[in-house]
Amino acid sequence: MSWEDKVRKVVPYVPGEQPGFADMVKLNTNESPYPPSPLVAEELRLMEAEEMRLYPDPEATQLTAALASYYHTDSDHIHVGVGSDDVLSQIFLAFFTNGEQILFPEITYSFYEVWADLYRIPYRKIALHEDWSLPAEAFRSEGGIIFPNPNAPTGLCESREFVRTVAANNPDCVVVVDEAYIDFGGESAAPLTEEFDNLLVVQTFSKSRAMAGMRIGFAIGSPKLIAALKAVKYSINSYTMSRAAIRLGLAALRDEKYFKKITGDIMSTRERVKTELQKLGFVFPDSKANFIFARHPRIPGKELYELLRSQNIFVRHFDTPLLTDYLRITVGTDEQMDRLLDFLRVYLG
Amino acid sequence: MSWEDKVRKVVPYVPGEQPGFADMVKLNTNESPYPPSPLVAEELRLMEAEEMRLYPDPEATQLTAALASYYHTDSDHIHVGVGSDDVLSQIFLAFFTNGEQILFPEITYSFYEVWADLYRIPYRKIALHEDWSLPAEAFRSEGGIIFPNPNAPTGLCESREFVRTVAANNPDCVVVVDEAYIDFGGESAAPLTEEFDNLLVVQTFSKSRAMAGMRIGFAIGSPKLIAALKAVKYSINSYTMSRAAIRLGLAALRDEKYFKKITGDIMSTRERVKTELQKLGFVFPDSKANFIFARHPRIPGKELYELLRSQNIFVRHFDTPLLTDYLRITVGTDEQMDRLLDFLRVYLG
Repeated sequence: MSWEDKVRKVVPYVPGEQPGFADMVKLNTNESPYPPSPLVAEELRLMEAEEMRLYPDPEATQLTAALASYYHTDSDHIHVGVGSDDVLSQIFLAFFTNGEQILFPEITYSFYEVWADLYRIPYRKIALHEDWSLPAEAFRSEGGIIFPNPNAPTGLCESREFVRTVAANNPDCVVVVDEAYIDFGGESAAPLTEEFDNLLVVQTFSKSRAMAGMRIGFAIGSPKLIAALKAVKYSINSYTMSRAAIRLGLAALRDEKYFKKITGDIMSTRERVKTELQKLGFVFPDSKANFIFARHPRIPGKELYELLRSQNIFVRHFDTPLLTDYLRITVGTDEQMDRLLDFLRVYLG
Repeated sequence: MSWEDKVRKVVPYVPGEQPGFADMVKLNTNESPYPPSPLVAEELRLMEAEEMRLYPDPEATQLTAALASYYHTDSDHIHVGVGSDDVLSQIFLAFFTNGEQILFPEITYSFYEVWADLYRIPYRKIALHEDWSLPAEAFRSEGGIIFPNPNAPTGLCESREFVRTVAANNPDCVVVVDEAYIDFGGESAAPLTEEFDNLLVVQTFSKSRAMAGMRIGFAIGSPKLIAALKAVKYSINSYTMSRAAIRLGLAALRDEKYFKKITGDIMSTRERVKTELQKLGFVFPDSKANFIFARHPRIPGKELYELLRSQNIFVRHFDTPLLTDYLRITVGTDEQMDRLLDFLRVYLG
């Protein structure tokens, strides 16, 4: 058997395009339209190339402590990684490779399926309610449970009580809530991790903290969960967080006022865009994320995606049967959204 | 069964300490005693916090292309990651989980065993020759082969012909040469990857390019190997390389003159320290790395480690039967090495 036959066969996740056109309206990867906090720019000015010669702190102690303090808990409840994808990948490996079937929603972040396949984890997809809300009662597992809240790409957000129900119903497996989009109006389940030692909450600096380019994500959970997660991390890569990520992440976390301002602005813009899209005949679940997942009854999703692309407006289209009618539109600045809305008004009117 | 019984059991790698004392002589994690190239400092000054709001290029196209050009090959021969540990972990998962036994040296980088255990890969350790050189003929496998060159922590370097023999002897598995320390006088096997499509060479910016704090490593190999490796990478984390890592890595790569200067200085210091250590009665293999793995016939390794520590001089001691007599001493600046030598002269004399 040749070495080529022995290569692990995988079907990777495909991230949104990162085209580099100057005049482009980039509404395709749920980045923040606003820059990181001015404190990040200030910290960047204080960084010295000299310090880069030394390994970073493998524990990212300062960043972990700052996150712990932010979430009113202790450092042994926090684990950081290279974006939430890094943390989620470690979670799948640490908690979901027990041989039992794990559960996630039928419509959800498509990376879950990729990690499950990579680590040879059996899984079952849970059908959503007709309104795309998640059926709490259907989530009963011995292997593990993961869902985003708000869900992606629907944008629908479940309550903290929903998470409590799922965590309480599944004491014998780890329950993971992927809160990448929680800061845009949702209610985080982080406080519930003090109550349920099998509950992990995962968040990211990529959306609400406008730092996708620095790769910072983290998990909040009981010390037992975090210790197990760290053991897996230290079995993969001792030093995941660069000195730059640690310093700039810390700076972002210090500026609560700016964080409130930009997430507030994005939410206001989102609500305004919802009203305008509705007037134009679009249909969409009531998103609590920094994107709107919308379809127009008269135009196929792919057609509209191509059309917008020809206008230098990039949104995301998922070419799967369940989602093909829809476009995932990131909430940008008011100016960016006006360019989108202006075009749609002319085209549809 | 409780969720705790279902957690993946691992024994993680333990990185060297990162103590933060001001006056410390840090010779314990093989970092460069010199800062990164001035071009890195310049690039750092040009970075804007604003750009951090956007995801990085998932392909790190520019850095990959620069590495390809540096090694006189094409971009599809290069794969970058968050330090060489990130790349090596992906390699174990991509090429070594075929069910067959892999081989690595008995004395070697102890992370290999950790990755093998993590991914449930059977392995066998190959005994070294009495002089700690690697026995080419013993490396015959259907599962996979990995060894560092120079080897760690011995510092001994095999020739390019050695690598050619192992690659040629094992056409049915992937052969990985971990060249973390190759730039301190060794001969890279990179050119052989054009000849053997089953040969992967892994290098890092952490040692010879003085950028341990930024987390940059890479693999060089045939397009088929690199494509398989990338598929695994895209099944773990779309965006591993931050915008900062890509920009600063590129800058470091541009300054060949500085690279030659600091690696040359480290080699000169190493040779001088070898002479002095020999005069003091130390015994060590003839290192071609940026460290010397030495023992003193009169003092147990652990005792000397503790003694140096009490002088604020940090070296690395591995508390395993085969290595316990030895200390791994990173080659620092001449001043740092003089502090070490001065102390040893007084203590031993």
